[in-house]
Amino acid sequence: MEHTLPHTISLLSRTPAALDALLRDLPEAWTLRNEGENSWSAFDVVGHLIHGERTDWIPRARIILQFGETKAFEPFDRWAQERESQGKSLGQLLDEFARLRSENLGELHALNLRQEDLDRRGRHPALGPVTLSQLLATWAAHDLTHIHQISRIMAHQYREAVGPWNAYLGVLQCAGHSAP
Amino acid sequence: MEHTLPHTISLLSRTPAALDALLRDLPEAWTLRNEGENSWSAFDVVGHLIHGERTDWIPRARIILQFGETKAFEPFDRWAQERESQGKSLGQLLDEFARLRSENLGELHALNLRQEDLDRRGRHPALGPVTLSQLLATWAAHDLTHIHQISRIMAHQYREAVGPWNAYLGVLQCAGHSAP
Repeated sequence: MEHTLPHTISLLSRTPAALDALLRDLPEAWTLRNEGENSWSAFDVVGHLIHGERTDWIPRARIILQFGETKAFEPFDRWAQERESQGKSLGQLLDEFARLRSENLGELHALNLRQEDLDRRGRHPALGPVTLSQLLATWAAHDLTHIHQISRIMAHQYREAVGPWNAYLGVLQCAGHSAP
Repeated sequence: MEHTLPHTISLLSRTPAALDALLRDLPEAWTLRNEGENSWSAFDVVGHLIHGERTDWIPRARIILQFGETKAFEPFDRWAQERESQGKSLGQLLDEFARLRSENLGELHALNLRQEDLDRRGRHPALGPVTLSQLLATWAAHDLTHIHQISRIMAHQYREAVGPWNAYLGVLQCAGHSAP
């Protein structure tokens, strides 16, 4: 389907509660383990989502609206959560993600975007020209890629416990398709 | 990690609320669309999870405890939800899944399983010998494989809307690894 702002917002507004319901107070054996060297735990992923709320989606939308293609976005730091999540609990991160997402959806609403705004182009430092519509669709799809990742990271912890059923569980065959 | 019953229960008890938070009242463009012919929508997946609660996990646990390897499990009908979900709304399915899961966790608790029970073997009609421990670990990993699938199905709907960002979104490269 084409990008529609109400569909994007409906998904963006649900992700914090979905992750909260899945992860809060879950044993750390599920949430702090990763898939091996240079990979992320569910805890790391929530930290990454927080960093996106702070530095990626709304800041980039503002750059597109203000500068168009004349100013490239700041590159996104994919390992920022290593610093920023230090000393925090997963519960604190889930709270922080929910608060920031809510604030950012308020900012998005206040932008009062019209179709001609959604068609405006900005410049991604690696991908080149992108539209505001594509940025906002990616915000939603980025949530989904990390729900996808979290379910895979957690399933990985049971890859041996399931015994011969591993052949039937698609999530255990998933290599992730992107780093990390 | 090895299978531990408390870890399995902690995950099983969260899945209904996580899916509820993600899917309830979401536009049907997200929940009723699939990935193409012979594939499932998020709505179909919730119906499949319901069928598992009715016919798979606890019934198979009872067969292991009662018959051991002498009686193979009934094969699981992977398309049962086509009949069983007809005429229902996604909200009704989410309610039904939550109710059945809660009842089944009550039954699991009442079985009062000891380690020697978890080590008991049953017979899968295709996979051969499996333990009760492996069955219960698979129940949890099966939730995760379908959260993984739902996030992929939904992301698929925005595969064009994200424009050049599709190269960065792992979920859009995922082919699913199992049918369907």
